[in-house]
Amino acid sequence: MQTQEDYLAGLLEHGLLFSTGVDGLFGRSALFEATVDGLNALVTKHGDGFNAESVTYPPSMSRVDFEKSGYLKSFPGLAGSIHSFAGDDRAHRDLLADLEAKRDWSGRQKITDVVLTPAACYPLYPLAASRGQMPKEGLCFSLCSWCFRHEPSRDPARMQAFRQREYVRMGTAEQVVAFRASCIERGEAIVQLLELPYHLDVANDPFFGRAGKMMANNQRDQKLKFEMLIPITSDEHPTACLSFNYHQDHFGLAWGIKTADGEVAHTACVGFGMERITLALFRHHGFELANWPAGVRQALAL
Amino acid sequence: MQTQEDYLAGLLEHGLLFSTGVDGLFGRSALFEATVDGLNALVTKHGDGFNAESVTYPPSMSRVDFEKSGYLKSFPGLAGSIHSFAGDDRAHRDLLADLEAKRDWSGRQKITDVVLTPAACYPLYPLAASRGQMPKEGLCFSLCSWCFRHEPSRDPARMQAFRQREYVRMGTAEQVVAFRASCIERGEAIVQLLELPYHLDVANDPFFGRAGKMMANNQRDQKLKFEMLIPITSDEHPTACLSFNYHQDHFGLAWGIKTADGEVAHTACVGFGMERITLALFRHHGFELANWPAGVRQALAL
Repeated sequence: MQTQEDYLAGLLEHGLLFSTGVDGLFGRSALFEATVDGLNALVTKHGDGFNAESVTYPPSMSRVDFEKSGYLKSFPGLAGSIHSFAGDDRAHRDLLADLEAKRDWSGRQKITDVVLTPAACYPLYPLAASRGQMPKEGLCFSLCSWCFRHEPSRDPARMQAFRQREYVRMGTAEQVVAFRASCIERGEAIVQLLELPYHLDVANDPFFGRAGKMMANNQRDQKLKFEMLIPITSDEHPTACLSFNYHQDHFGLAWGIKTADGEVAHTACVGFGMERITLALFRHHGFELANWPAGVRQALAL
Repeated sequence: MQTQEDYLAGLLEHGLLFSTGVDGLFGRSALFEATVDGLNALVTKHGDGFNAESVTYPPSMSRVDFEKSGYLKSFPGLAGSIHSFAGDDRAHRDLLADLEAKRDWSGRQKITDVVLTPAACYPLYPLAASRGQMPKEGLCFSLCSWCFRHEPSRDPARMQAFRQREYVRMGTAEQVVAFRASCIERGEAIVQLLELPYHLDVANDPFFGRAGKMMANNQRDQKLKFEMLIPITSDEHPTACLSFNYHQDHFGLAWGIKTADGEVAHTACVGFGMERITLALFRHHGFELANWPAGVRQALAL
């Protein structure tokens, strides 16, 4: 098995990723992007029966909505808030003097109304809530968004900026649990088409601090999160490339999302780590597209 | 002519954009995105002869590279820096107490190594420089990136988060000036295919402060920037939807980019405001795709 450093070096040498000098932040080549596009289309094809409404959000979201979501309670260190300069000519001269002297200029920035999107579905819940009571069959949405997580790493499969494709289901507990089961089946079908080794496991989010350990245990005990793991830079520690999450009534309560019967809605989502799956393809089928199995190229229209 | 508020209300009512509660930050519908995709493909088709290398960057870039670019000198108020929490359990409790009490929690965030990309081409220059002296014919790149500018506005055509498609040319002054002229021709051909009213004009960037006025005048006098203006929310103040920029040796000097002869490279770029052109299409052809001219739908494969 290649190490993180070897695999990263291979990706850079073959011109699939471009270094920016910051760990976890890369430019992508045309082939890398064509693979992401092919994967996106394949996911759409396999989501056919969901009748999902497609909504596209920018990589940033409302700070007020973000504060309300509870993300800072669970993952404070991963979040990114956006700050801007709001001073006059004199303050600008001071800012430039800081830059010139290589001093810290961050104190001259003020927090804005915008934060970076931590997971594709976060901006969606307030939209769903704003539409009022949902139809009897519930709701399903399709999203693809750039997400940000502040976790600089040498592992190319742990990027700070990456794309997450999601389907999000809202409705009764029965509806969303059935949806999640169907997503696991479809996810397995996709990964099999891509001829990638995988296994499915119960998982937990990386909740912060001592209180977070309890939340993680609870999440595992209740099997709220499953992950499809594929070895990329380690056989021992394979990478979560797809995740299947049952949020119970967490977002329904936070946003007041209501089912047709006026009950608090339950929600579930499936998330595809687009960069991670793409990296798994280059890891298992090689850096040269010409050497990939014919079936995989066909599945991705490559 | 519709006012900004009328046009925004129409976009929201017809479900083309979704409000996030923050000015200049919107969700996009499937039709809006299909239009952006069609436009992107149309731009690619018209860039055929450029032999451009396609590179895709995330919505964020290296802070060190950003500091070096000079952006904070010219547009400090538009920039967005990304800040994260780096504290322990106790600091986390304080953060949550701030949130609970609706106090300002921004002081608990520390600046990271990452800032938001202000224009699609900013992360590209260090990549080009890292490749060393360029071939005789120079270089051409194709980019499409989410950009951020902190300028909250009620004008839907002035978003904080938007996509910019760019072609960037690097080489001798003659090469990049000829490229820019060719981009203006191609840009006109695209906008004519889309049956949008437009005019071309000399322009200047919104440089900051008193010193910025001189820079703006200089930019206009030397005709370094042209814009293709299309009325969207005002006939009097049409919106810059495409821009054609000759940077002279600004980026070449900043990054040490060299031509085949070892001279400092000149650079030029054309930028397509993907959301702005899309908004212009809905403004001039109506909110209902069925009513659009057949030629426009055909050009966009809609």
